[in-house]
Amino acid sequence: MTQPQPLHGLFAPTLTPFHADLSVDFDRWIAHSKWLLESGCHGLCPFGTTSEANSLGLDERMEMLERLIDAGVPAEKLMPGTGMCAIPDAVKLTGHAVKLGCAGVLLLPPFYYKGMSDDGLFASIAEVIERVGDERLRVYLYHIPPVAQVGFSLSLIERLIKAYPQTVVGIKDSSGDWNNQQAILKAFPGFGTFSGSERFLLDNLRLGGAGSINAVANVIAGPLRKLCDEWQSPQAAALQESVMTIAKARGNNPAIPVLKEILAHYRQDPAWRTVRPPFVDLTATQTSDLLAALKLAQFQLEAVV
Amino acid sequence: MTQPQPLHGLFAPTLTPFHADLSVDFDRWIAHSKWLLESGCHGLCPFGTTSEANSLGLDERMEMLERLIDAGVPAEKLMPGTGMCAIPDAVKLTGHAVKLGCAGVLLLPPFYYKGMSDDGLFASIAEVIERVGDERLRVYLYHIPPVAQVGFSLSLIERLIKAYPQTVVGIKDSSGDWNNQQAILKAFPGFGTFSGSERFLLDNLRLGGAGSINAVANVIAGPLRKLCDEWQSPQAAALQESVMTIAKARGNNPAIPVLKEILAHYRQDPAWRTVRPPFVDLTATQTSDLLAALKLAQFQLEAVV
Repeated sequence: MTQPQPLHGLFAPTLTPFHADLSVDFDRWIAHSKWLLESGCHGLCPFGTTSEANSLGLDERMEMLERLIDAGVPAEKLMPGTGMCAIPDAVKLTGHAVKLGCAGVLLLPPFYYKGMSDDGLFASIAEVIERVGDERLRVYLYHIPPVAQVGFSLSLIERLIKAYPQTVVGIKDSSGDWNNQQAILKAFPGFGTFSGSERFLLDNLRLGGAGSINAVANVIAGPLRKLCDEWQSPQAAALQESVMTIAKARGNNPAIPVLKEILAHYRQDPAWRTVRPPFVDLTATQTSDLLAALKLAQFQLEAVV
Repeated sequence: MTQPQPLHGLFAPTLTPFHADLSVDFDRWIAHSKWLLESGCHGLCPFGTTSEANSLGLDERMEMLERLIDAGVPAEKLMPGTGMCAIPDAVKLTGHAVKLGCAGVLLLPPFYYKGMSDDGLFASIAEVIERVGDERLRVYLYHIPPVAQVGFSLSLIERLIKAYPQTVVGIKDSSGDWNNQQAILKAFPGFGTFSGSERFLLDNLRLGGAGSINAVANVIAGPLRKLCDEWQSPQAAALQESVMTIAKARGNNPAIPVLKEILAHYRQDPAWRTVRPPFVDLTATQTSDLLAALKLAQFQLEAVV
């Protein structure tokens, strides 16, 4: 089956900077988004898990996307997260993104109710697609069971592709389970499978994957892009090893405050540290351990391609 | 510590009826809400888990609440669910409910991100309270870890009561864990502790609890009310046994389609069967088993007090 594939390569689920009063810092956000595109990202996923998307209000998300595109970030490089628990809210965000010309959307399943059947999840995604009712819509399924708890099984993916071959065109697999990602890549060759973990980026590309959507792209877009470009070269394994720096330095700390700390520290821009509750700042010890590990690894932020 | 306690007794997390096109059936919803109050409920929790609240859009929820109060349901009997993943959305719904005069709100914690610290959850609830900034606000914490995964620990409850003694006035414990509910009742005597399960209603009242908020109140408000009124009488244990009819007949089936089937069947009103995805209809076998079990138990819907 031939499916449209508007998006390939490296995507960052863009971090969201906040002012001290927790309001969105639009200027810093737009500047960071542009920096990511200049630093190697093929495109951006505003409103991924790493973006604290589920700590942003519906109205905020729509205003942010409008401002980003108004500021000159091309909509054809954007795959915003638009999945919500309730169909009407998901339709609102998805329709809004399509109208703004976004190349695709990253769609979480409804994640409040647990233990839902594939029939119910299929109906939920189908309702969103039908109600948006726009042939330009391209959906990337967002499979992240460690957080959302609710996910997309192989048979559910198959049903969605069969029902909407021109619309359901890919997936971000953030299961952290290579067996699952491999199974998707093998079962659906024409499908746009993005690795949600940089750990599987090389393996994903070797099996015909579409690319990678990684939290760490916020701070190592350069090395990740190099791997995307040179995955068939002899140094591919070494490049794969090189993109694991942040994961190793991070340890068990939560990704969002870690990545914000890295931006704050290496840019000497403390405003980046602010997270919205329920996230909290790293402790002093967590911070010093992180920075020591990064120093040891000779980490540098400005890894522009 | 003396805390305001505006709400006591039996509350129904009101089921939400839908038209065939999945839009909210306002007329049926308002009629059912009034019937519940006439049938024994002291008040209502529109937008609980049983209400499919997390399948309703933000705009829908606000319109529903306005229409319900416009239709004559007293706001002082209402404890709508207003907790959302994102602070701005929770503030919007909570502020709206307070402005309409609702006696309290039932507040889910932010439930998308998992493994959040008590510090982060405290900050999240505190932000909602501070931003709503209305001294009429009365918050009932909604502890339902089997669904939301994220919940309120005893130490978090204590911190919230200490910080906001006039605002954080109660909890709905839907953990399904009597040990937890008992610990809350013993630790916070002036706090309004509602049992989320009818199984613990009598025990909750015996330990000074505020009452019960039960899904099954949608179909057995009468017997539940009788237990609330006569929990100190000699027949209390028998009354407690009598409110377990639905739980026994339900088996392992999901509560929402079961309760909707009961209304559809006993009212001869098939429109009640419609659920929003990701929920699905009961199968024919599930339905016939349920109805057979209810018939055996000589169940009757019209159990008006």
